[in-house]
Amino acid sequence: MKPVKLGLLGVGTVGASTAMVLKNNAAEIARRAGRSIEIIQASRRSVAAGMPQGCDNISLVSDPFEVVNNPEVDIVIELIGGYEPALKLVMQAIANGKHVVTANKALIALHGNEIFAQAQRKGVNVVFEAAVAGGIPIIKSIREGLSANHIESVAGIINGTGNFILTEMRDKGRDFGDVLREAQDLGYAEADPTFDVEGIDAAHKLCILSSIAFGIPLQFDAVYTEGISRVFTEDVVYAGQLGYRIKHLGIARRTGEGIEMRVHPTLIPHKRLIANVDGVMNAVLVQADKLGPSLYYGAGAGADPTASAVIADIIDVARTITTDAQNRVPHLAFQPDQIVEIPILPITEVQTAYYLRMRVEDRPGVMAEITRIMGDNDISIEAILQKEPESGVTRATIIMLTQKIREQQMVDAIEAITGLDVVHGEVHRIRVETLDGD
Amino acid sequence: MKPVKLGLLGVGTVGASTAMVLKNNAAEIARRAGRSIEIIQASRRSVAAGMPQGCDNISLVSDPFEVVNNPEVDIVIELIGGYEPALKLVMQAIANGKHVVTANKALIALHGNEIFAQAQRKGVNVVFEAAVAGGIPIIKSIREGLSANHIESVAGIINGTGNFILTEMRDKGRDFGDVLREAQDLGYAEADPTFDVEGIDAAHKLCILSSIAFGIPLQFDAVYTEGISRVFTEDVVYAGQLGYRIKHLGIARRTGEGIEMRVHPTLIPHKRLIANVDGVMNAVLVQADKLGPSLYYGAGAGADPTASAVIADIIDVARTITTDAQNRVPHLAFQPDQIVEIPILPITEVQTAYYLRMRVEDRPGVMAEITRIMGDNDISIEAILQKEPESGVTRATIIMLTQKIREQQMVDAIEAITGLDVVHGEVHRIRVETLDGD
Repeated sequence: MKPVKLGLLGVGTVGASTAMVLKNNAAEIARRAGRSIEIIQASRRSVAAGMPQGCDNISLVSDPFEVVNNPEVDIVIELIGGYEPALKLVMQAIANGKHVVTANKALIALHGNEIFAQAQRKGVNVVFEAAVAGGIPIIKSIREGLSANHIESVAGIINGTGNFILTEMRDKGRDFGDVLREAQDLGYAEADPTFDVEGIDAAHKLCILSSIAFGIPLQFDAVYTEGISRVFTEDVVYAGQLGYRIKHLGIARRTGEGIEMRVHPTLIPHKRLIANVDGVMNAVLVQADKLGPSLYYGAGAGADPTASAVIADIIDVARTITTDAQNRVPHLAFQPDQIVEIPILPITEVQTAYYLRMRVEDRPGVMAEITRIMGDNDISIEAILQKEPESGVTRATIIMLTQKIREQQMVDAIEAITGLDVVHGEVHRIRVETLDGD
Repeated sequence: MKPVKLGLLGVGTVGASTAMVLKNNAAEIARRAGRSIEIIQASRRSVAAGMPQGCDNISLVSDPFEVVNNPEVDIVIELIGGYEPALKLVMQAIANGKHVVTANKALIALHGNEIFAQAQRKGVNVVFEAAVAGGIPIIKSIREGLSANHIESVAGIINGTGNFILTEMRDKGRDFGDVLREAQDLGYAEADPTFDVEGIDAAHKLCILSSIAFGIPLQFDAVYTEGISRVFTEDVVYAGQLGYRIKHLGIARRTGEGIEMRVHPTLIPHKRLIANVDGVMNAVLVQADKLGPSLYYGAGAGADPTASAVIADIIDVARTITTDAQNRVPHLAFQPDQIVEIPILPITEVQTAYYLRMRVEDRPGVMAEITRIMGDNDISIEAILQKEPESGVTRATIIMLTQKIREQQMVDAIEAITGLDVVHGEVHRIRVETLDGD
């Protein structure tokens, strides 16, 4: 069969790894793909930096548009990241009738609708397995493996840095800032860790997962996003005492009133498989009406795992180059004319249980005042832990688990509790999910 | 797009569920597949039993060959199970130029080489996602999602009945026979439970997984198979005390000397994710050179989960009906001319660690005799537990964990230990796998 010719945009860690894996695993890849797959041209800002060892036969240029406009290139591999020039390059590649493989979650989450519409018009494929959960074939599994099902929910640990930080806080009792600095030293977290720890990276991925699970347009702005920077070591400890672990989850759920899309720290019963996914690993739990729960676990980041997903996409595209576009797997799992708007539920309407932690005066009547407010807001309490003050301190800590309620009830209750004279400082709250299906 | 017309062979639980899911989820399926997918004819031995409710528009016949020879049928769905007439039907369907979707693990494991060769000649697709791990898209994940990797090993809990029994033995201290009877009452285990509890069903599945992981021919006879009927409740308890769980694993591993293919009870450290897969659930852990470990978890049996996999296959095939055969995903993941024989390692050459349990005279010198034999066979001991005899009994129980050794060393050592006067009855041994990658 005709060799497939690739143009590579970006020779950073993932780009270099993609070139190396294509070279080092060339024989095994050809055994499966039935043809050779080769990068014929690559671009990087600094041409002087060259290609990785053994890949120096690849023509390297500084202008990525040269690659995108190269008539020899069948598939463009976009591994530059960010919005620009990635968007312009992808759109130009599509305009030139080239297929595109990308690992760029931000690009797909924010500009995917426009990209896929253009790809549809031009009859080319734009695929993005590596954009979500690194090397785990989660896009393929949902889009193709679960295609007989109504997907009911998706809940994922989809940011490895965040999971590493929470795991270290639990295992070693370290605090957030301390672990974050180590993650930065280890190269897990960027110098500006906002995307990881404030949940933006996870929100990009959740936005994509929601779209392929439910057949809705990509709508990043509708994802409710809360990071882990306000999870305290004592919350991790108390959660453990109550039989839970705190994980930073991206959750998308189809309900009768609309779709939930939210990223936030979450208490999960420690018996759930996903509660035991630790360190930098990722996992996605999918609830589907016929299959029931299924879980996909693996490396969510890293050069080689990401390259694994990029190359799987390349092989898929190579196989469908000669297929008429309408017989290909649709970009967002659903046929373009079948992608429908479904209302997104505002976070205040979302129903979850809650974990609360507050510092109160250690004297009679305090608990009564707090539980009265909970009752006024129609909130049932599932469990209460009162931590007696240490000697010399007059404030006790109260930890509560509530039953499932509408978020607005909790907002109102917290406002009232915070207003009590006997309550000091903030009322900390973390949502609780039982993930019963797992 | 043209509707896809199916002929269904077998209207048992999975066949009936497949018809029901196609009907009940028709709209969601069409949103993805871009065309309607309908069963136009079905066969079942007793036509009088009819079709499931709501599916009575489907023409039902008693002769499955009528379906296979129906010129209107595009894809034949084989859900009869067993070897004959399933094999003849599948071969006839292929001869008629029809694509085939099957859930029949025994058929694929034993006759797959012949079936795929014929399918290749006729340019049709034969797919079998439902044959391994029920609804989990494990075939797709390995075959397509991990296609950039050298697969190093696969280790799976791939028989739900066996896992249910072991889970109950651990959680409730029940014995094997007792739980097996319950499993039969619940409908998990067949009246003849041999296929499940003696590991034959798992061996069928492991044979298929090995082939798509390594690109070797299907060779069921080469799978070493040991069931769970000789796992005792006390082994489950002692394993727990040592920090392990006993799972019935199918393991395929590529080593320098050949391929291991084996199904047997296995001690796994309880911290591993797969050690926490309980009840009837299945999970497959894959080690790949670039992705590293990844795990796929879900329902390994049941009518709806199996139908989920069958229908995913149908949609895949529908998309490739117009694709030239050489551009399709190869049946066994590797191009037919790239499937190569690799030596299969005899079990005596396989290296694992071991758990041993034996009953011995409770007197000085016994331990010395046993450890001397271990030393003579070059076996290092990792841990020893001695359970003192209860009052009135003169025999103690010794439990040992060894380091990793060649199976033949263990066979020799056990023979020598069994021959000691001070050792009573059998020396029980269970292999131990650390599954470090997870």
